[in-house]
Amino acid sequence: MWHETEVQSRLEIKYPVIQAGMAGGTTTPELVAAVSNSGALGTLGAGYMAPEQIRSAIRAVKELTDASFAVNLFIPSPKHSKEQEQSYIEAGLKLTERYRQKFNLEPPQINQVEENFDEQLNVVLEEEVPCFSFTFGLLPMRMLQKLKAQNITTIGTATTVNEAIELDLAGVDLIVAQGSEAGGHRGTFLASSMEQAMVGTLALVPQVVDQVDVPVIASGGIMDGRGIAAAFMLGASGIQMGTAFLTCHESGAQDMHKEEVLNSTEADTMITKAFSGKEARGIKNRFMEEMDDKHDPIPPYPIQNAATKDIRKAAGQQKKPDYMSLWAGQGTRLSEAMTAKELVDKLVEETDALLR
Amino acid sequence: MWHETEVQSRLEIKYPVIQAGMAGGTTTPELVAAVSNSGALGTLGAGYMAPEQIRSAIRAVKELTDASFAVNLFIPSPKHSKEQEQSYIEAGLKLTERYRQKFNLEPPQINQVEENFDEQLNVVLEEEVPCFSFTFGLLPMRMLQKLKAQNITTIGTATTVNEAIELDLAGVDLIVAQGSEAGGHRGTFLASSMEQAMVGTLALVPQVVDQVDVPVIASGGIMDGRGIAAAFMLGASGIQMGTAFLTCHESGAQDMHKEEVLNSTEADTMITKAFSGKEARGIKNRFMEEMDDKHDPIPPYPIQNAATKDIRKAAGQQKKPDYMSLWAGQGTRLSEAMTAKELVDKLVEETDALLR
Repeated sequence: MWHETEVQSRLEIKYPVIQAGMAGGTTTPELVAAVSNSGALGTLGAGYMAPEQIRSAIRAVKELTDASFAVNLFIPSPKHSKEQEQSYIEAGLKLTERYRQKFNLEPPQINQVEENFDEQLNVVLEEEVPCFSFTFGLLPMRMLQKLKAQNITTIGTATTVNEAIELDLAGVDLIVAQGSEAGGHRGTFLASSMEQAMVGTLALVPQVVDQVDVPVIASGGIMDGRGIAAAFMLGASGIQMGTAFLTCHESGAQDMHKEEVLNSTEADTMITKAFSGKEARGIKNRFMEEMDDKHDPIPPYPIQNAATKDIRKAAGQQKKPDYMSLWAGQGTRLSEAMTAKELVDKLVEETDALLR
Repeated sequence: MWHETEVQSRLEIKYPVIQAGMAGGTTTPELVAAVSNSGALGTLGAGYMAPEQIRSAIRAVKELTDASFAVNLFIPSPKHSKEQEQSYIEAGLKLTERYRQKFNLEPPQINQVEENFDEQLNVVLEEEVPCFSFTFGLLPMRMLQKLKAQNITTIGTATTVNEAIELDLAGVDLIVAQGSEAGGHRGTFLASSMEQAMVGTLALVPQVVDQVDVPVIASGGIMDGRGIAAAFMLGASGIQMGTAFLTCHESGAQDMHKEEVLNSTEADTMITKAFSGKEARGIKNRFMEEMDDKHDPIPPYPIQNAATKDIRKAAGQQKKPDYMSLWAGQGTRLSEAMTAKELVDKLVEETDALLR
């Protein structure tokens, strides 16, 4: 089972294990390349990166590996009117002002909220990246056709069966089924409420597998060979792991973030919109609590993300985890610090022992 | 693996599959006995039953099977002062008044909220039930000792690793790890917040297994052989299923409840306190939405449960699912209507095929 899923042949990898495209500096070219060199698939989490940064990072990965790898981008959010956007920006700045005062920061310029997805994707096409994954929605048909014309494998993200069916109909090659255990941003884009789209991985994966034609990649809470073997039993053809790779030596996550993940338990995380305006799972801290207590509506992504960016950065530099976005899934008791190769080797050994 | 876990020998069953002790009339003696006669473990969900009702039901089960079975009870809630209790009762009656008007019901007498756990447990001891499971807390030591003296196997319920550790230290024989996918009431009793105790089954089970000495039974979202095989890979020694048995022919769940479960999807359920005062997962309906919209605090269990009892009953009789508690887990797309024996046979066949 370990050596014959469609995912390996599609992605040209030895093991059907994908390192998730965690945005925000975690997926350094060193991490991506180390994962790919180990026989799994590294992913550059490029959602927040400017097009030319993405180009440099892709080239850096290619310097470090000849193996396949992926780039992950965010599907843009719905556009708001200029007036609406301005009112969101004001609300976001007001809501976060006291934290900027705490860290002696000037208010950021958020006078133009541009998501540059088209330019980002162009870099992926121009640099001939082997695999492209995306979250927060469907890929427009013309873009999917361009990717297909270049033989770039496409991976969409679903948190419900209906989202998976839409991705399948749109023609993606592979679908990540993201269970509620997953750390970081929820990929949800169609569900009527976020709470109803919080489906546990064990329940989600077989229901998705039954309803789509393409291979399904399980994600959410998988941390070791037990989780991988379980995912295969559920019908998955591959698995994706974020938190497990976040604490690897090559990961660019801040040291304080790694430490918090290594020392936290399964019951320390919560879903919050406080940092970015989109729901994401992270270790509960003071910033999350205070924002929740206020009951003020949090402006949508990417506005809240822009409003909190400098605060999170300063908190990281000053090692104040209470004001950092400590993204993590629910499997954190199983976190370990090692190299990406050591982790992939360990995963393969553990999974082999269970599936033998 | 299927034929050698400690759970079978402990419970004297052929297959390490437990039918969950769903309270409220679902677990008829016919269902319990049919499950046990099929080689799994039937459970009488007796949490809401009066002591003498429990005695009759146990005797009815014993008429129908010589195999092992379990009785499940609720650990009592913390006591409130008379004044506090009276104010909760008034709040509960006020909150639910418009629904009683809708169904032409008189306000119920809730002048004395007594949970009769001691008497319920005495019946379990007197009737020499082979196995006793419980939720919502720890079993007082003197009771655990009485059960042990009679060789009754004890099963506690945990939703976090810390809860599992406490149950292990208390000396229970087996621990059910209840993941966030599970339908019906959350067993949570120690977590600092319900949201943080919503840990997906795939993440919860291995972390519990690593921290306790007794065998762990996985529950939450398991509906077929894929879920069972996955649970074994995660390190579970057995599994518990509620929703899958709820739609069996022998189940006493109301027809409308069964129909709703059979026709719902993974994204149709939510956690609500609206029906009982304790968090539970059910198919989202009008009653849940309206209670949530009100933002009035819902009185605690068992007061809210007593306040809504007649409404739920009348709604069931009049086939109005919008006012019934439609408990269900997140695996409902995999629900089927069949006999309990057909279900157990199917589960065994599917699991065998995967673990062969």
